[in-house]
Amino acid sequence: MARPIITLTTDFGTNDHFVGVMKGVILDIVAEAEIVDICHSVQPFDVLDGALTISQAYSYYPTGTVHVVVVDPGVGTARRPIIASSDKYHFVAPDNGVLSLVYGREERMHVRHITSEHYYLQPVSNTFHARDIFSPVAAYLAKQVDTLKFGDEVEDYVRFAAPKPKATDQNRIRAVVLKVDRFGNLLTNITPQDAPVLSQPDPGQFKIVVGNKEITEIRPAYAEGAPGEVFGIWGSMGFLEIAANRAAAAQLVGAGKGSEVLLTLGGVAAAGKGA
Amino acid sequence: MARPIITLTTDFGTNDHFVGVMKGVILDIVAEAEIVDICHSVQPFDVLDGALTISQAYSYYPTGTVHVVVVDPGVGTARRPIIASSDKYHFVAPDNGVLSLVYGREERMHVRHITSEHYYLQPVSNTFHARDIFSPVAAYLAKQVDTLKFGDEVEDYVRFAAPKPKATDQNRIRAVVLKVDRFGNLLTNITPQDAPVLSQPDPGQFKIVVGNKEITEIRPAYAEGAPGEVFGIWGSMGFLEIAANRAAAAQLVGAGKGSEVLLTLGGVAAAGKGA
Amino acid sequence: MARPIITLTTDFGTNDHFVGVMKGVILDIVAEAEIVDICHSVQPFDVLDGALTISQAYSYYPTGTVHVVVVDPGVGTARRPIIASSDKYHFVAPDNGVLSLVYGREERMHVRHITSEHYYLQPVSNTFHARDIFSPVAAYLAKQVDTLKFGDEVEDYVRFAAPKPKATDQNRIRAVVLKVDRFGNLLTNITPQDAPVLSQPDPGQFKIVVGNKEITEIRPAYAEGAPGEVFGIWGSMGFLEIAANRAAAAQLVGAGKGSEVLLTLGGVAAAGKGA
Repeated sequence: MARPIITLTTDFGTNDHFVGVMKGVILDIVAEAEIVDICHSVQPFDVLDGALTISQAYSYYPTGTVHVVVVDPGVGTARRPIIASSDKYHFVAPDNGVLSLVYGREERMHVRHITSEHYYLQPVSNTFHARDIFSPVAAYLAKQVDTLKFGDEVEDYVRFAAPKPKATDQNRIRAVVLKVDRFGNLLTNITPQDAPVLSQPDPGQFKIVVGNKEITEIRPAYAEGAPGEVFGIWGSMGFLEIAANRAAAAQLVGAGKGSEVLLTLGGVAAAGKGA
Repeated sequence: MARPIITLTTDFGTNDHFVGVMKGVILDIVAEAEIVDICHSVQPFDVLDGALTISQAYSYYPTGTVHVVVVDPGVGTARRPIIASSDKYHFVAPDNGVLSLVYGREERMHVRHITSEHYYLQPVSNTFHARDIFSPVAAYLAKQVDTLKFGDEVEDYVRFAAPKPKATDQNRIRAVVLKVDRFGNLLTNITPQDAPVLSQPDPGQFKIVVGNKEITEIRPAYAEGAPGEVFGIWGSMGFLEIAANRAAAAQLVGAGKGSEVLLTLGGVAAAGKGA
Repeated sequence: MARPIITLTTDFGTNDHFVGVMKGVILDIVAEAEIVDICHSVQPFDVLDGALTISQAYSYYPTGTVHVVVVDPGVGTARRPIIASSDKYHFVAPDNGVLSLVYGREERMHVRHITSEHYYLQPVSNTFHARDIFSPVAAYLAKQVDTLKFGDEVEDYVRFAAPKPKATDQNRIRAVVLKVDRFGNLLTNITPQDAPVLSQPDPGQFKIVVGNKEITEIRPAYAEGAPGEVFGIWGSMGFLEIAANRAAAAQLVGAGKGSEVLLTLGGVAAAGKGA
């Protein structure tokens, strides 16, 4: 009864006709679908960036949503098109790991290799499977075609681990900047599990080195930073961010995607504190 | 009976998952909503730019539309989330002045401080109230939940005046460039009320100085400018624009957002004309 | 019974309120419409770029779709607003050639000069006909208002030819880069009809010179290129593209929109091959 919802996450940008074509293909099959753009600015060819993006957004959608995720540098080669289904959602994507972080969060995923050309837009090109395979398959899923009609279940789907922080000794963690957001906040891969003390009201002494700055404060809100100050903040994505108040931390510290983040907890002064 | 319409105006850009998350939250509460992007390219942290953007677009929407406006550098601090309601629309926003230009155009606005956590997405973060407060509240408004259920009415909401041109003497006006649009047109804050003679068929002599150019012509259409000419034009937003034919005036005059605009009406030659 | 679908293709970008205003105007007339963005990043004032964009996308949409195409440097002048109708679609656009490539693909188009001000948003500005004319006319078309109510049919509508490759001698073709896509692929105007041998499994010897590179390979998929290699590929738009595997060919060859592409088929070595 409810409208089927199909979301799109791609690295296609919005400067070309690619996304407009996908929407036309979908609407021609399921005219009542609500198509929602999650993001088309995944870094070109960057499967991890796509994995991060969909993992941050998919779970807010209603049960039954079909999520299409296309970051597909291997289009036209032997990499498989797949449908991955959880209790709540279907994901349609190339089998290149772009759903890795979804697999990590959802129990009981069933993954199928799409092989039923009956659901393809013919003729199938070698360069635009988002148009020829992923969009029409998503549209038929939204029309309640049973997943088992699209192909057989597979167990050997591609799955990679997102980069995790490494403890280099008892008090030191080497982490990385996963991405820089619109506001210049540096999103690290440090979670509360990696450094529980940092999510306490009083984290004690610590030091985060990133780019050319040492950060020694965690703030509860962006606006609580002093002008020009760079600080840590637990962001809405569940990661530690390096941020500034009404300014781009990325510029202030001279760091970006892939930059190293060194976290030292406690330390000499901290030990001295307890003496 | 009609679908509820919810519009989004933010400074989130479209490179991240932020807008996609907002849409998921809304659709999970009110699956039949039509969500429309007005603009996500408000200058980061720039409340006046957000106020200008929503003020230019909201009034074209059907009665009953819920407009969400999030430019929110104070997220997580004591600034209040509000619902501002006119006879036709609801606006959901932080109480930081981003609705100032709407207040200036709509009579009889009722503003409520949102305090009913019942309508929030829990747990509420300190950094993403668009997800946790503004989107779900907009969704419940679209579901016809009565505004009085969200919190008490307030009178002391934040409201600022947009920068107005100043008369420096009888014939001179000092104005400012409010923004530069996609085409490089410089949007000034001069309205027909500020310089009625300029909207006459024959405006007489005048001079506009902006950047490194003197402008002495008003054209009725962009295409009526000569190649390379910079001229004034009454734009669709009700402001005087500095423009060029198939070229970016901003580049031609070397000016941008915030640049000073000096308008001189009449003058020696004009007086001589009548002699 | 099905929702009316209206697509938008413009050079308005997404940094301003322009597109948000169009959507409001449409929804205020036909609240149940599904509005779909095909692309708002047509190069400013570039009618050919707009013609290419809509020609690549429109045909994927369901029968009955209304396509609005606004690249309109002549707004406010005598250029006519038109409705062009095929058996399946309506197109609403300025009569400046932006539908030329659609005319080239669709048989039996009927073109009408829109003159019925009854369907305009009043007052009509000189600078924003997308708001005042094209959007409301599209909305009334989506409400099934008969095309003959909007104005008389015309035969002398503006139509230009897209740039075609030229044979400079029997084995040489001079072509051009039509556009560069998101991934840095150079889209040429060479079709299989221009060089049939290049779409054969074994194209024999050939040479494509563009920018500072000589290209001598056609690959069936982007991922089949060697690291750093620049190659040709038949793209999803039906044109020969110059591409690279997970890299921007435009940067690698130092070429862009408008760059010359010289294709030589066969040649000395090819002749020697058969000897």
